[in-house]
Amino acid sequence: MNNDSSSLIVAELAEWIARAAPGVQLASTRELVARFEASPVTVQKALRTLGARGLIETRPGVGTFVRSSRMPQPLDFDWQTAALHGTPPPGRSASAMLRVAPQGAIALHSGYPDRSLLPERLVRAALARAARTDAALARSAVSGLAELQSWFARELEEATPNGVTPPSANDVIVLPGSQSGLIAAFRSLVTPGRPLLVESPTYWGASLAAAQAGVLVVPVPSGPNGPDPTMLDRAFEETGARAFYAQPNFANPTGAQWDGELTQRVLDVVRARGAFLIEDDWAHDFGITSNPIPVMARDDGGHVVYLRSLTKSVSPAIRVAAIVARGPARERIHADLSASSMYVSGVLQTAALDVVTQPAWRSHLRGLRQQLRARRDLLIDSLTEHVPLAHLTSVPRGGLNLWVRLPDTTDVAQLVAECEQSGVLIAPGVEWFPAEPSGQFIRLNYAGANPESFPQGMRVLGEVLERVV
Amino acid sequence: MNNDSSSLIVAELAEWIARAAPGVQLASTRELVARFEASPVTVQKALRTLGARGLIETRPGVGTFVRSSRMPQPLDFDWQTAALHGTPPPGRSASAMLRVAPQGAIALHSGYPDRSLLPERLVRAALARAARTDAALARSAVSGLAELQSWFARELEEATPNGVTPPSANDVIVLPGSQSGLIAAFRSLVTPGRPLLVESPTYWGASLAAAQAGVLVVPVPSGPNGPDPTMLDRAFEETGARAFYAQPNFANPTGAQWDGELTQRVLDVVRARGAFLIEDDWAHDFGITSNPIPVMARDDGGHVVYLRSLTKSVSPAIRVAAIVARGPARERIHADLSASSMYVSGVLQTAALDVVTQPAWRSHLRGLRQQLRARRDLLIDSLTEHVPLAHLTSVPRGGLNLWVRLPDTTDVAQLVAECEQSGVLIAPGVEWFPAEPSGQFIRLNYAGANPESFPQGMRVLGEVLERVV
Repeated sequence: MNNDSSSLIVAELAEWIARAAPGVQLASTRELVARFEASPVTVQKALRTLGARGLIETRPGVGTFVRSSRMPQPLDFDWQTAALHGTPPPGRSASAMLRVAPQGAIALHSGYPDRSLLPERLVRAALARAARTDAALARSAVSGLAELQSWFARELEEATPNGVTPPSANDVIVLPGSQSGLIAAFRSLVTPGRPLLVESPTYWGASLAAAQAGVLVVPVPSGPNGPDPTMLDRAFEETGARAFYAQPNFANPTGAQWDGELTQRVLDVVRARGAFLIEDDWAHDFGITSNPIPVMARDDGGHVVYLRSLTKSVSPAIRVAAIVARGPARERIHADLSASSMYVSGVLQTAALDVVTQPAWRSHLRGLRQQLRARRDLLIDSLTEHVPLAHLTSVPRGGLNLWVRLPDTTDVAQLVAECEQSGVLIAPGVEWFPAEPSGQFIRLNYAGANPESFPQGMRVLGEVLERVV
Repeated sequence: MNNDSSSLIVAELAEWIARAAPGVQLASTRELVARFEASPVTVQKALRTLGARGLIETRPGVGTFVRSSRMPQPLDFDWQTAALHGTPPPGRSASAMLRVAPQGAIALHSGYPDRSLLPERLVRAALARAARTDAALARSAVSGLAELQSWFARELEEATPNGVTPPSANDVIVLPGSQSGLIAAFRSLVTPGRPLLVESPTYWGASLAAAQAGVLVVPVPSGPNGPDPTMLDRAFEETGARAFYAQPNFANPTGAQWDGELTQRVLDVVRARGAFLIEDDWAHDFGITSNPIPVMARDDGGHVVYLRSLTKSVSPAIRVAAIVARGPARERIHADLSASSMYVSGVLQTAALDVVTQPAWRSHLRGLRQQLRARRDLLIDSLTEHVPLAHLTSVPRGGLNLWVRLPDTTDVAQLVAECEQSGVLIAPGVEWFPAEPSGQFIRLNYAGANPESFPQGMRVLGEVLERVV
């Protein structure tokens, strides 16, 4: 260490200042020169260092004083602008979608089901039981709780047809929410700088995850019936991509569900291209007039990597999801997750498993189906009655959202802002497009707000739309 | 869609197969040609597609059969090797450090304290209470629970000296474990492809996080007294780096604690270079003969970004940590986290806050201090007695580890393997070096194993070391 005399003076004075009262005056430079037997230059240098450390302040013509923390002084972070290189943060922020609605607002913007749709009694009992288990004090394995891995594997096995080998519990890795799984899958299967095909529109969280993983998003158009396999094949050929991210069941935002033929044709394309289908089965528990069959149940060639979350259906406080993959892909994802999220709280895993293995979970899901159906239909009726200019792209057979097309002349940003001023929160469609939007859209969530507010919400939307169209 | 005749045959046969029993024979190609009024080429193409889908299998000279899932058939994932481009996974896997010790082994390799060192009663009661709160069913804000943010801010405020403005609750973002905070800080403050200075040796999780964030790690030598500020300054100058990651209190693995003068000199370098100090205060609750004072408490210029975790001291099942940053840096980190981890389970946040605000938490920490001291001293005594070839680099004033230098001729990998065969798990020092190790080291954790096993563990280590040196 370089113990020059200026540093020694700094050290001694700093120690004195730490014990001094704020506002106390320091000895003069002349006195300090004498006390430390140093040159005035050395003393001045020491005082400058103390000033830069925020320990003292000089009042010109008066003297030098111990700085007071009471003294209001704006903090200066200007230097950060240079240090951060002006690079914009990767991707858009999720804050808009995740923001908490103000009291009294009709919240049709968020993707989370209302508390009345959650299995409250099961969740509270499961958490209380988990608090008494060993899981409350232990670290979990990176792959997760063995019994929970098995539960996820069994759910897939039940959907697996004759002749296809279902994934095993060992192919399952438990996640702290599916976002970390998306990032891990994109980073380890696509690798930074390489292309990833995604449906357009698609879940905004996937676009954020792609930006975080540093992969290049290539949109493939997808409508109310899902993507066109011919366009998908062309996109693989053009870009050399080796992975396609999609939500085959009740896609967010369109609500599209792939039929059996489309599923097979997409699988054929993916297999022929030696590629992965990253299947995000986000709405597995939210079927209304149709049951979702995971595409992964039809593939044992390791082409499908499957994501399944319990966060939205069990409780947003029980952030537990799983990623299922086979072969080297599973190893890559496992290595990535062991370095990023490391492991999932055993309490949350134990509670999640407890909830989904209770007999009451099945009956809860049946009731949820009825409630989602009633909510969906009421919102559609209100939309049809009060917003004649809107076009519902399709009646979703599951999921939580309506995908609504507006006249091409609509200023959607203004629509969203004016609706918010009138207490109605809606989500602008542009958030779901990885590139330019193919039209003017909004997404309306029927799971979050009180259904009694739907007619009023749609009345406001209809009135504002008339103005901004 | 392209409904060519081959696709139609595939669709019809696939439907038939789904209902057929495994092992049933399909009609012959001739019969299929007749039934579908198609050419033999078209029928063959359809059968190839069905084969590729794993629905049928052809036994040459016998016929074509519905594939049976019972039939053991090795799955073939060879194609993935090409799709994954042979790119190695980013960074090393954490599995070695996170692996669970086999029953009966003396586990000196892991970084997690034994259950007997955790506040078990407080944790169970806090989780049970949290299960009854609104937090059990609600989504948390991205920044975290306001009361928990305040608690983290208050802890820093209490350490902040006169004349320095302490961070506010708004500067705190709650994390699901500090690993996600490291990745977010590296990605948003350093940005991919740019240099990050780190102590060498340093926490292996930081090296993993740097690889995940795509930043380039530049090691700065650090010994039992911490890094040399002159070398640090030179590394900033040489590389143009704008950030330095360090553990100023009880560094993992060396146990080093920066003294007041070194802290100031590092801060002076960091300020002069317009850079960030990313301070990982991992062992804040693990002081033994010294109390850790966060470096952040001495800076209100936004130069220090501070990480503080409760996972190791409260419970590994309550994965809650915080990152504290000010100015644009805080905004960048917040945006990154909202896209990666999104939010932390409200149940875990509520339980963590409950534990650390109980009066019994303070007395628990006092008892923990005594236990860590006894464990540390017993392991040092056992090491000194049974492993005369080992050199303890310093007696740590806090933390959970001894950093032990071995003779330069030691084959550490063989040492670790042979110790494991004799039931003693130790961690090879190479894991903590971001580049080449500067010598032969092992890390011995005194917080995980039963202290009664320390003499036996060191006897084994001593015997094996004699053989492999």
